Amino acid sequence: MNHQTHPKYDIKVPEPTLRRLPWYLSNVKLLKQKGEQFVSSTQISKDTNIDASQIAKDLSYVNISGRTRVGYEVDTLIAVLEDFLGFTRVHRAFLFGVGSLGGALLQDSGLSHFGLQIVAAFDVKPELVGADLNGIPVFHSDEFSGKMQEYDVNIGVLTVPIEIAQSITDKMVAGGIKAVWNFTPFRIRVPEHIVVQNTSLYAHLAVMFNRLNCNENP
Amino acid sequence: MNHQTHPKYDIKVPEPTLRRLPWYLSNVKLLKQKGEQFVSSTQISKDTNIDASQIAKDLSYVNISGRTRVGYEVDTLIAVLEDFLGFTRVHRAFLFGVGSLGGALLQDSGLSHFGLQIVAAFDVKPELVGADLNGIPVFHSDEFSGKMQEYDVNIGVLTVPIEIAQSITDKMVAGGIKAVWNFTPFRIRVPEHIVVQNTSLYAHLAVMFNRLNCNENP
Repeated sequence: MNHQTHPKYDIKVPEPTLRRLPWYLSNVKLLKQKGEQFVSSTQISKDTNIDASQIAKDLSYVNISGRTRVGYEVDTLIAVLEDFLGFTRVHRAFLFGVGSLGGALLQDSGLSHFGLQIVAAFDVKPELVGADLNGIPVFHSDEFSGKMQEYDVNIGVLTVPIEIAQSITDKMVAGGIKAVWNFTPFRIRVPEHIVVQNTSLYAHLAVMFNRLNCNENP
Repeated sequence: MNHQTHPKYDIKVPEPTLRRLPWYLSNVKLLKQKGEQFVSSTQISKDTNIDASQIAKDLSYVNISGRTRVGYEVDTLIAVLEDFLGFTRVHRAFLFGVGSLGGALLQDSGLSHFGLQIVAAFDVKPELVGADLNGIPVFHSDEFSGKMQEYDVNIGVLTVPIEIAQSITDKMVAGGIKAVWNFTPFRIRVPEHIVVQNTSLYAHLAVMFNRLNCNENP
C-alpha cells in the first residue's frame, strides 16, 4: 500500500492529539458512508466542534497532505489514520485476572478491530484455569513466563484485584512485557522504559458523578 | 453515619484531582488490609509516587482533617473518599447498544460496587429484545421513553455503532438523560447542561501503541 506518506510511528505524539485523532477517524468514516470523497478540516470542525486550526495541527503529525480547495481524500485519510493509530497492526496481549471486568474484556471482540488481540489469559482460580473463553485459553498464573516464550506478546492487560496489582505488574515486567494496560484503580509503578496506560472506569465514574451533582445542585 | 465532615458534592472538583482520589482510596484500602489504623500524606506519597503536597491539596476537597503526627484515620478516610466519589450511592443507568462492548459491560458487575447500576439495556436486534443478560432486561430502543417513566434513571451508557451515536444521544437527552457515558470513539454533541464522560478504549489503545513504538524505536 503506497499512500505516498511516511507515517512517523516513532515520534512521541502529544496525548491530546492521540485522543482527538480517533474522533476525526470516526467522523470521516461516517462521511465515507454518506458517499463523500473529499473532506476539509473545516468540515470536520463543523461536525466535531473542534477548532479547524487544531485539526490541521493534529493532522500534521499524520503526514497526509490535503489538496487546495478539495481537502483530504476520504479513503486515504481513513487508511492513513488507522495505520498511524496502530489499529491496522496486530498487537498481541495477555490478560491478567479473569474476574468480572477481565472476563468482560475477553468477550469484547471489538478490541481486535482496533489492533489489540488478547491471545491468552491468566488466573489462579481452579474453575477458570484450563477454560476457554471466547476462544481465548486461560492458564494458571504460574505458567506466565513459559507462555511468554510460546506466544509473541509485549502487552499485558491488568484486571486483577488491587491487592496483587503491583506484584503481578512486577512479574509481567520481569517476564518481558513492555506495556501495561491498567484497568485497576491502583497506581502501579514500573521501570522508566515500560509504558503504562491507565483506564480506570471507576475514576471516570467519579468524574461523571461529580459533574452530575454539580449540575443538579447549582 | 457521622464523619464530622461535610462532603462538598456540589463543588466542581478539578478532573485531575478526581482521577487521583481513587488511587489514594485503593492505597488506603490496602493499608487497612495490612492492619494499619492511621495514614499520612507522606505514606500515601511514598506508595503512589505522587507529591505529598499534591495529595494534601487533593484531600482538602474531601473535607477530612488529619491529626498532627498520626495523620488520617484509615477507616474514616476510606468511608469519606467512597462517599465523596459517589461510590456509595446508587446511580441508575440505561445502556444503549448491546453489541460486543455493551454486552461486556452488562457482564461487569464490578460497576455496581462503584455506584453505577445498569437497570436496563436497549437495542433493536430481534434476538436481543426481550432477553435478560446478567439479570438486566433488554428492551427495544423504541420503548426508551416509556421506560424512562418506569425506572428512575438519569445516566445513559452509550455503546452503539458510530453511525447512530449522535441520534441515540439526541433521543436520550430528549427523554431526560442528564449524563452520557460515551464509550464510542465518536465525538457526540449535547446541550450545555448535559454531562458527557468520554471513555474511548480505542483512544487509549492509540496512546499505548504510540508510546510502545516510541520506546521500541528510540
